[in-house]
Amino acid sequence: MILHTDYSVPGFLASAVSAGLKKEGVLDLSLIFSQKQAMVAGIFTTNKVKAAPVLLSQQRIKRGFTRAVIANTGYANACTGERGFEDAEHTAALISRGLEIDPEEVLVASTGVIGAYLPLERIEKAVPQLIGNLSPHGFRSVANALMTTDSFPKISYFEGTVGKRPFHLLGLAKGAGMIMPNMATMLSFLVTDLEIDYQNLWSPFRSTAESTFNRITVDGETSTNDMVLIMANGAAENGELSKSDQREFERGLSHVMGELASMIAQDGEGASRAVIVELQGGATKEDAHAASRAVANSILVKTAIFGRDANWGRIMAALGRSGVTMEENKVNIWINGTPVVRGGLMISEVNEKEASEKMKTSQRVIITIDLNQGVCSDKIMTCDLTADYVRINADYRT
Amino acid sequence: MILHTDYSVPGFLASAVSAGLKKEGVLDLSLIFSQKQAMVAGIFTTNKVKAAPVLLSQQRIKRGFTRAVIANTGYANACTGERGFEDAEHTAALISRGLEIDPEEVLVASTGVIGAYLPLERIEKAVPQLIGNLSPHGFRSVANALMTTDSFPKISYFEGTVGKRPFHLLGLAKGAGMIMPNMATMLSFLVTDLEIDYQNLWSPFRSTAESTFNRITVDGETSTNDMVLIMANGAAENGELSKSDQREFERGLSHVMGELASMIAQDGEGASRAVIVELQGGATKEDAHAASRAVANSILVKTAIFGRDANWGRIMAALGRSGVTMEENKVNIWINGTPVVRGGLMISEVNEKEASEKMKTSQRVIITIDLNQGVCSDKIMTCDLTADYVRINADYRT
Repeated sequence: MILHTDYSVPGFLASAVSAGLKKEGVLDLSLIFSQKQAMVAGIFTTNKVKAAPVLLSQQRIKRGFTRAVIANTGYANACTGERGFEDAEHTAALISRGLEIDPEEVLVASTGVIGAYLPLERIEKAVPQLIGNLSPHGFRSVANALMTTDSFPKISYFEGTVGKRPFHLLGLAKGAGMIMPNMATMLSFLVTDLEIDYQNLWSPFRSTAESTFNRITVDGETSTNDMVLIMANGAAENGELSKSDQREFERGLSHVMGELASMIAQDGEGASRAVIVELQGGATKEDAHAASRAVANSILVKTAIFGRDANWGRIMAALGRSGVTMEENKVNIWINGTPVVRGGLMISEVNEKEASEKMKTSQRVIITIDLNQGVCSDKIMTCDLTADYVRINADYRT
Repeated sequence: MILHTDYSVPGFLASAVSAGLKKEGVLDLSLIFSQKQAMVAGIFTTNKVKAAPVLLSQQRIKRGFTRAVIANTGYANACTGERGFEDAEHTAALISRGLEIDPEEVLVASTGVIGAYLPLERIEKAVPQLIGNLSPHGFRSVANALMTTDSFPKISYFEGTVGKRPFHLLGLAKGAGMIMPNMATMLSFLVTDLEIDYQNLWSPFRSTAESTFNRITVDGETSTNDMVLIMANGAAENGELSKSDQREFERGLSHVMGELASMIAQDGEGASRAVIVELQGGATKEDAHAASRAVANSILVKTAIFGRDANWGRIMAALGRSGVTMEENKVNIWINGTPVVRGGLMISEVNEKEASEKMKTSQRVIITIDLNQGVCSDKIMTCDLTADYVRINADYRT
């Protein structure tokens, strides 16, 4: 992944500063600003415990337009009750005053420790510089400011053409842990200069999230703060979209959201291998979904991958407890293309060794399963479970 | 726990040998034999992928009587198809020939690596010594022979009185990993000399398993080999049981199965803390069950406990994604008796620190949650998730 520092999208400005919410000098507060009103759509966590910024942004997004989103790391502002909600409103108000825009047009996103109150005075102190730094080339620093236990910033960029006019789509995300989005991901912001109506924006955005962000899991945990937003400001002035223009936009969404999702899975906390579980032959769509997730979230499968052990027995056991329609003697399994199980039985020790070798040399482990019960398939990206994951999450608050 | 080497139950003999299924010299093959026909009841894994010994024993147990059970470690004999089933039958036949009993009256249990075939010649070679060693005092060596990654043998013993006659109940178990029994546990055998009819044996056995073995989870994984058996040979010659006799038997079951379950949770692979999740105020029984399990299986909660961090935010997040009826602002949480959350909010940093301190000094972490939605409660035992768990399971087959 090459990070062009000059990524930009016409009409959008971005900026990030260190407000002292995390370690001294680390970027932790960021702002994306649209110079004109932008259409906005968003997807939020399905966790019943929703952080204050999720509740506020969910409310404000209903009007369909926005101008700015401010995001902080270090503090999730979750489980903070009314005071947390007021703190999120206050944060937005600081931005609306500074930028002289309607406070209702500022969205807020947070990630970090649950239960602690936002240190408002530090945010208040940092806002003038945050606004002062706004620049068309600020997106890379926003991607950096979104990082928590991420090991690299996550940016994806797409340039397309509608009619004869160019348009741009830029996406940012943070990932790492507490990742099993359910109609959302940890935090992700997309901005585009496309001129588009709400239905044409929402529908492909929603379905692309389903096939990208909702197809990753790190640890089976759904965060209280998941939020993915897309803002479209129309600066491309492309007029009405034709059917092929719409497809071009969808291609851009697939590219950007797919790349971000893949980066998140690859950068799972402590991960040493990216893992893809491909499930075929499910009796129903629900079965394909449940079976692939049971394997992807099985901590015994994930630790075996960390041990570079093609332990297909654990895959069989995970399928067996997933509750889906299956017959042991119809299951076939491949690991990185090497067939290891046919009709529920080991094919040979030679194949098993070959599969284990491939796990050692390849950065990506692809587990392909055919249940032979029907025609439904699903696919999910995850990572292995390492001693480092345990260390990171045992020491998270210390 | 004190291990009396002379634990015995009238009419039962036991024995264990090293058959070379695991490391040289380690006990790995064991036998329990009833000198007269014993009534038998059993509970088996709900995993759809069932090991050959599970399928065979499930079939044979239907007659209601048995004489012997042979158990091996090292090989699960799961995902081994017809050959595996024949191997299990063959193992039983070796015992029936040696003891001159009906082959249908021999049950088989296995635990170990999935997918490999039983090394029959090694078992065949070891059987004469296994039978030759049978003794009333052999149960301790059976408990040792059942161990896999267990760090200590699991035995529990109860002496009671029915009418004026004494009776005995002895239980053995193995635990460690792949533990989230669903109407069973990994392997557990109970023997009693009580004279009892089938209905009086089955019903309390089943319900006690529900409140003990089905209330533990180590890693949310249900094994292919789970099996818990109880044999009652009537050697106590107590005649018909009165209601108070029946209660005495139930007290014995609760004691033995409760103690074994607690040992299994405490000895979870790599565990440094036993954890009890008590859930109160659920709207329904199903909610109380689902919410307590979501917390007990959350790897973020479990790693926080390993870090001795009273990170109640992760408990809230696990409750929120469990799908149960809940309102964030009604949730109360205590850790080892210290209130940390009231109405969904942190009570104070002082209390949180006190709770973290208690996690450092106490071997047991008790998480008590009140959802305040109704009157249903549930309780589950588990353990923390440590870097050692990952190491054990990454290197399991190497």
